[in-house]
Amino acid sequence: MSVVTIQRKVLEKNDEVASVNRRYFAERKMFVINMVSSPGSGKTSILECTLEHLKSGLNIAVIEGDVQTDLDAQRVAKFGVPVAQIVTNGGCHLEAKLVNDALSSLQLSGTQLLVIENVGNLVCPANYDLGEAMKVVVASTTEGDDKPLKYPGMFHKASVLLVNKIDLVPYVNCSPDRLKKNALQINPTLKIFETSCTTKQGIPEWCDWLKSEVVKQLRA
Amino acid sequence: MSVVTIQRKVLEKNDEVASVNRRYFAERKMFVINMVSSPGSGKTSILECTLEHLKSGLNIAVIEGDVQTDLDAQRVAKFGVPVAQIVTNGGCHLEAKLVNDALSSLQLSGTQLLVIENVGNLVCPANYDLGEAMKVVVASTTEGDDKPLKYPGMFHKASVLLVNKIDLVPYVNCSPDRLKKNALQINPTLKIFETSCTTKQGIPEWCDWLKSEVVKQLRA
Repeated sequence: MSVVTIQRKVLEKNDEVASVNRRYFAERKMFVINMVSSPGSGKTSILECTLEHLKSGLNIAVIEGDVQTDLDAQRVAKFGVPVAQIVTNGGCHLEAKLVNDALSSLQLSGTQLLVIENVGNLVCPANYDLGEAMKVVVASTTEGDDKPLKYPGMFHKASVLLVNKIDLVPYVNCSPDRLKKNALQINPTLKIFETSCTTKQGIPEWCDWLKSEVVKQLRA
Repeated sequence: MSVVTIQRKVLEKNDEVASVNRRYFAERKMFVINMVSSPGSGKTSILECTLEHLKSGLNIAVIEGDVQTDLDAQRVAKFGVPVAQIVTNGGCHLEAKLVNDALSSLQLSGTQLLVIENVGNLVCPANYDLGEAMKVVVASTTEGDDKPLKYPGMFHKASVLLVNKIDLVPYVNCSPDRLKKNALQINPTLKIFETSCTTKQGIPEWCDWLKSEVVKQLRA
């Protein structure tokens, strides 16, 4: 039995559990996003801004995925929303089974939006469906504008791109237009927002759009 | 046969090939570094600065590892040094076998320093020895100061930490002192340089130190 065969079986098994998660979410009319990016792109900061903006109008819960520590869960818990921390102990991505286990530890009655923040890794999490409605990829301007071309898998799988740290453009060698063009070359259907958690640019637009998607799911 | 068993066998096989690579480098008194980081931390920019600084005094060759594209190899080739591009086609790390294959495609006669730039991924490359003398981890200030705690494996395995984009500290929420303290908590033996490829701060110190390590190897 080859490594490739084992890898395929791991992914097939993951897809089965992801389908179970997806049914769980659909039955509860819960909209679920899977936030993915490089380490330090600002996923947690965007999540904080999103909670600040939306928590009075929506019931939100969070699952945090990290290689080590519960630092991100501590940040999120300050907003008074239910949060579960998954520590992968060196694992480079979340799997559907880990999310399924976390669901039972959360108080999810009435939750309308569940945000899963994946491990910071622009490669591996692309291959693991968690049962989410969509992947949201965060790419910060400080990482340069060539990342969609160099890491196409994630941009191909994502539905939304947040071009984050847009306030730092004057100080870094990155053209947001080129970054967006490169991303759309990989995935022409990407919905794109430019955001900054420092100036709050783009946060209302992103949050309003996200809320409209949640409402669509509730009415479906 | 379990996935864990397969994974252990993959790593054992990798370690065998890494030993072959290590003997190859030792016989030629070639000093080899494995540069690792998140996507967009500035590995290629630091490599460009290092080539600019050292190429007149040392024979240097480069192996570039990328998920997709040869954009980095094109940047490096401008410096007139031998460069091989490994495209992993979705793979999240370099393995010793891929490096071994690349060696035969490079003109390495007289090479004193070989730089391997790994795939941008702060998790998976930590587990794969390539036969290098040391891992150099690049962490940029734009990623925040908590990364050593959240991704300890890489900082544990590295010998050198380059705290890069030090010029952007005034604009980001990162304390370089806290970043260094967190890194040293994970690995007290880390040699640390603060660098900027924009202002060139720290580049001479890093390059002088690297050259002294190459010279040590030549005299060994």
